[in-house]
Amino acid sequence: MKKFNDSEFLLGSGTARTLYHSFAENAPIIDYHCHIDPKEIYEDKRYPNIAQLWLGVGGSNFGDHYKWRLMRSFGVEEKYITGTEPDELRFQKWVECLERAVGSPLYHWSHLELKKYFGFEGDLNSENAAEVYRICNEKLAQGGLSVREIIRMSGVKLICTTDDPADSLQWHRLLREDESFDVQVLPAMRPDKAKNIEKDTFIPYLAQLGAASGVSIDSFAALKEALIRRMDYFAYLGCRVSDHALEYISCAPASEEEIEDIFARRLRGEVPSAQECEKYHCAFLLFLGREYSRRGWVMQLHYGAKRDVNSRMFYAHGADTGYDCIGSGAPMAQLADFLDLLERTGQLPKTILYSLNPTDNAAIDSIIGCFQNSDACSKLQHGAAWWFNDHIDGMTAQMKSLANLGNLASFVGMLTDSRSFLSYTRHDYFRRLLCNMLGDWVERGLYPARMATLGSIVKDISYNNAVRYFDFDLKEI
Amino acid sequence: MKKFNDSEFLLGSGTARTLYHSFAENAPIIDYHCHIDPKEIYEDKRYPNIAQLWLGVGGSNFGDHYKWRLMRSFGVEEKYITGTEPDELRFQKWVECLERAVGSPLYHWSHLELKKYFGFEGDLNSENAAEVYRICNEKLAQGGLSVREIIRMSGVKLICTTDDPADSLQWHRLLREDESFDVQVLPAMRPDKAKNIEKDTFIPYLAQLGAASGVSIDSFAALKEALIRRMDYFAYLGCRVSDHALEYISCAPASEEEIEDIFARRLRGEVPSAQECEKYHCAFLLFLGREYSRRGWVMQLHYGAKRDVNSRMFYAHGADTGYDCIGSGAPMAQLADFLDLLERTGQLPKTILYSLNPTDNAAIDSIIGCFQNSDACSKLQHGAAWWFNDHIDGMTAQMKSLANLGNLASFVGMLTDSRSFLSYTRHDYFRRLLCNMLGDWVERGLYPARMATLGSIVKDISYNNAVRYFDFDLKEI
Amino acid sequence: MKKFNDSEFLLGSGTARTLYHSFAENAPIIDYHCHIDPKEIYEDKRYPNIAQLWLGVGGSNFGDHYKWRLMRSFGVEEKYITGTEPDELRFQKWVECLERAVGSPLYHWSHLELKKYFGFEGDLNSENAAEVYRICNEKLAQGGLSVREIIRMSGVKLICTTDDPADSLQWHRLLREDESFDVQVLPAMRPDKAKNIEKDTFIPYLAQLGAASGVSIDSFAALKEALIRRMDYFAYLGCRVSDHALEYISCAPASEEEIEDIFARRLRGEVPSAQECEKYHCAFLLFLGREYSRRGWVMQLHYGAKRDVNSRMFYAHGADTGYDCIGSGAPMAQLADFLDLLERTGQLPKTILYSLNPTDNAAIDSIIGCFQNSDACSKLQHGAAWWFNDHIDGMTAQMKSLANLGNLASFVGMLTDSRSFLSYTRHDYFRRLLCNMLGDWVERGLYPARMATLGSIVKDISYNNAVRYFDFDLKEI
Repeated sequence: MKKFNDSEFLLGSGTARTLYHSFAENAPIIDYHCHIDPKEIYEDKRYPNIAQLWLGVGGSNFGDHYKWRLMRSFGVEEKYITGTEPDELRFQKWVECLERAVGSPLYHWSHLELKKYFGFEGDLNSENAAEVYRICNEKLAQGGLSVREIIRMSGVKLICTTDDPADSLQWHRLLREDESFDVQVLPAMRPDKAKNIEKDTFIPYLAQLGAASGVSIDSFAALKEALIRRMDYFAYLGCRVSDHALEYISCAPASEEEIEDIFARRLRGEVPSAQECEKYHCAFLLFLGREYSRRGWVMQLHYGAKRDVNSRMFYAHGADTGYDCIGSGAPMAQLADFLDLLERTGQLPKTILYSLNPTDNAAIDSIIGCFQNSDACSKLQHGAAWWFNDHIDGMTAQMKSLANLGNLASFVGMLTDSRSFLSYTRHDYFRRLLCNMLGDWVERGLYPARMATLGSIVKDISYNNAVRYFDFDLKEI
Repeated sequence: MKKFNDSEFLLGSGTARTLYHSFAENAPIIDYHCHIDPKEIYEDKRYPNIAQLWLGVGGSNFGDHYKWRLMRSFGVEEKYITGTEPDELRFQKWVECLERAVGSPLYHWSHLELKKYFGFEGDLNSENAAEVYRICNEKLAQGGLSVREIIRMSGVKLICTTDDPADSLQWHRLLREDESFDVQVLPAMRPDKAKNIEKDTFIPYLAQLGAASGVSIDSFAALKEALIRRMDYFAYLGCRVSDHALEYISCAPASEEEIEDIFARRLRGEVPSAQECEKYHCAFLLFLGREYSRRGWVMQLHYGAKRDVNSRMFYAHGADTGYDCIGSGAPMAQLADFLDLLERTGQLPKTILYSLNPTDNAAIDSIIGCFQNSDACSKLQHGAAWWFNDHIDGMTAQMKSLANLGNLASFVGMLTDSRSFLSYTRHDYFRRLLCNMLGDWVERGLYPARMATLGSIVKDISYNNAVRYFDFDLKEI
Repeated sequence: MKKFNDSEFLLGSGTARTLYHSFAENAPIIDYHCHIDPKEIYEDKRYPNIAQLWLGVGGSNFGDHYKWRLMRSFGVEEKYITGTEPDELRFQKWVECLERAVGSPLYHWSHLELKKYFGFEGDLNSENAAEVYRICNEKLAQGGLSVREIIRMSGVKLICTTDDPADSLQWHRLLREDESFDVQVLPAMRPDKAKNIEKDTFIPYLAQLGAASGVSIDSFAALKEALIRRMDYFAYLGCRVSDHALEYISCAPASEEEIEDIFARRLRGEVPSAQECEKYHCAFLLFLGREYSRRGWVMQLHYGAKRDVNSRMFYAHGADTGYDCIGSGAPMAQLADFLDLLERTGQLPKTILYSLNPTDNAAIDSIIGCFQNSDACSKLQHGAAWWFNDHIDGMTAQMKSLANLGNLASFVGMLTDSRSFLSYTRHDYFRRLLCNMLGDWVERGLYPARMATLGSIVKDISYNNAVRYFDFDLKEI
């Protein structure tokens, strides 16, 4: 029996262990996609206790919705989850859920975090909850776990945050000038608000973006000009990558005139039809795809999430509080056709595709294979298993599918997609799974025990592929 | 090499074996969803031979369509399957198929039944078929395997049958009064015939339901009144749960007026359009969902089956004779939106979702997570793998997905969904798989060897969660 | 640790090894579906070097698009892939990709081929690429690896090529008369061009088919007459099986008059609507299905591919050059309804269903179960994992699904679907996986160690089932 969460966690064979310890364990981290706040890095935020670090500040709507969902599924009252009950009580309630969360990635993530950052090597349960609470809070009080310390301890070399084009990027600017902190913190552009023409937020947002860019946005052409100016500024601060969240990717090409007409009518307060929205989304993405291509940026397309499913709770708590689900039935043919529209004129940028529905794995791997060429090594990528799929089975399935249908060795690897500074352990989780899978293949005679080649593949997926693919200013290892 | 079907069947590790023998093997059974006939329980039916018990009475259309399908796939002539060939010959033909059915759950189920109820520990094959036929029939002749004896031997504490609202429930009433039998046999309401407005059976059925409820059903309002009266009566006889079979779940809200109009036109003989049917289905389910919520009943929603696919055989043999298949492409977004309609007014009942398409697993687990709250522990449930998925891979996949995305420990666990009294072994099959999965996780270091916690999780999933969730009048173990 | 690619490759248990070596390894091969050119068999083609054998002739568009895709995903320039760079350099580039293609079926296929045909037992890598190139080319120069020699060495007894109805079948005729070659090479009919009414090629093709059949094709009735004549001729040359490639299978029945009207308008140059195309496709397939049924032919339906996704590369390189992907969302209900249309009148032929989307596995297995009867053993078949799924996980998933929901023992087994004469090793790959799965089940106690029964199942799936199912003129083993 393997001991839970020891140094060989998830590593089921000798080959896996060798690969992990020799090539993965100490490789630095590039977190090219996350949702942490650059202000908190700049200000080197500290947390008063583990409850707030893990569950958020009681009464606020900002925190780890993964954990909130687990607590709700155990029938815990909301006041102990996002409410204002005392922090220690909320922690206690969390632990009562966690200790029974057998098979959940949260069980693993939480214990990896306790071990790495707090030095706690046991398993958390109702009986030791109070003690662990004390241990963690002491560590936090000692100041060794400020945001910057966590980042340093984690071996992070580069972080891309997720930023609206209208954002001033003031914290990125300040971080850039701060010589006391040598981790690169780059902006990544997420222009979803300019895409969401169907939402009430669209018109007010155009005003914001107009102010940020110095362009009066009275047409689609003006919007494009505003985005170009912001891209220039993002690029100036080191941006190499964008991100788009879509329910699904449609291919609905339309003329400039038609898009301008839809846009003009939207400005006058008309709500476009579903089909017009698709046309606008498509035109929007085509424009940006071409811009990214020109700039050598990477385009990330995340799709397959249905958001704010529980409308009562959405009104009470707002977005990103644990009420989203996996969508289904995304038209894969349209995704392929959309990519082809860009490719046709040689303007398809480096692109990473992520679906939230794991049944899309094989289709994605077959689609990216249609657009590979010598522009880059695995120019089209199938992004790491994400959100609801960010667990042993999901991550392994994504990697196996990529290996079966495409090219695992050139995979750009893991991202945290996280709001939490402790999530860098998920890179470790991922690397252990990667090494375990490779090691298992070797043990079963599916690949020769060529440790140098395997080691270089492990280092590449852990680190080097991202350096090369995004063209970051970092040295390979 | 493990011996086939020994006491450690399916239990691949020491931890799995300990969990199973200490916590699962002797836990009683709640079969909260099955299709057995309460009359046969009341009358304590006996079977003349194993052929009729397994394959049904020759010439009738009632029997185990799983076995029939397997025989047809081996090219066996129908006269040996549902026809009137001699029982022993039908059994012989069945055995010739079974012995080659490597990898089929039928192979396991059949041998579990032979072992538990008939004491036959070998493997059934053409050579010993005649002898096994003799052994089984002797046991049946001895009378130790009447329906009530099978139920008692199986450790069953409670059974929910599946009953039409128009059913008189006379056998439930009689069983309730029968002090010689202390297993609870409760009705469960399946009002599909009142939902199926598109079918020819709809109008005649309304007359039946009217007669049973004492309501003249001349409007949707009257139908609702009739159903309320029947729910009251079902509740009086202990009903705690309903079941709905749907091709897919749509969200097509409409006004009361519109529904009454559709209903009135249907009464006049008009066939509603597909869209009108969706609206009616939605209104019907919303009404019932709210009633269930008020009563604390559990709503089961089964979807994803396409029925009576082979129309020639459907006309020859009728429904449920082995000619159904898995549907695809159910609109998961509409399922989520439908649940939200109920949730919006706080009227979402405890709900168990079952899809017949295993590719829906992750989406379902993500959807239920959007509606969990302190009304109940895992108020929304992902039902056990069902029908075509009721095998090692299907059951394991459902549990792993639930563990990865949700909360395995609060799962209400197994049901037989069966027409056969021997099917209680499927609870055993399920529990072995559960213990094997948990044991495997412990052996691989994915969860600490906390046997008390794991044991309580095993007991909960095997029994206690169902007691609590359905609020049955039973003591926890 | 198992040695890579030794004699026990993929065989993880003693039972698996016994099954493979005793029953599978030396069983002959029937390749009932491939894309090799009968002319090359008749002329006993030889290859000048391994680069041309593996990657095709530089500058041509004919070769192994699996390998091309892998090279493109590593960012290799097209000139080294399909271009005119020197063969040895192209081989070197290929090896640089291959050695890093951990987890890819191409890694296994290539090494199985090197071992079986070239006697090279090591693992191919950049360091030994030049030497392997020399070794292989020497073997090729010695003449022992002509097309016919490869076929003989592989134990092939029968090959079905893929042939257009308009094809003269001259090479099949010549092969039939050639007494020096005793492997049966039969035509298989693929009438896709007559189905593709929406394509520009349709009208010119009708002229070709008219010429081949001696029928002036001025109506759908005339087209049917032409196809009947060609089927007669194909049957005369031993044809037992057809193949259809469809994006998805629709069920859109229409009257003869309507189809004739669509056809007549198409002849006049009108492009039919999408719905009209569906009706035509349906009528076309119904006609052929009935003809196949009458003749005892097997109908193969391949669906789920989206072709020529990258239009720029499609125009540059043509079809089948590595720019196809997996489609999604095929309407499984319509597939079932289409089969029912044929079954209704007793005219459903033996049918093999193949989807390119692996998420269809369970639905397919449930659909075929609705149409099984005593016409044949597993009259409806779920075809082997194919193209993008032709790897360890894909093949194992297809077989497990078939075993869980249907009847593995009656499976007609593997086909190469290949353009390469070296692909017969894929039958070996498949058989190893089959034996490994069965052996694993026995080792885990899921099936008794009845080696005679298991052995007969292995022989059946490897060979006998195909002999019986297609009714080939071959002796069972």
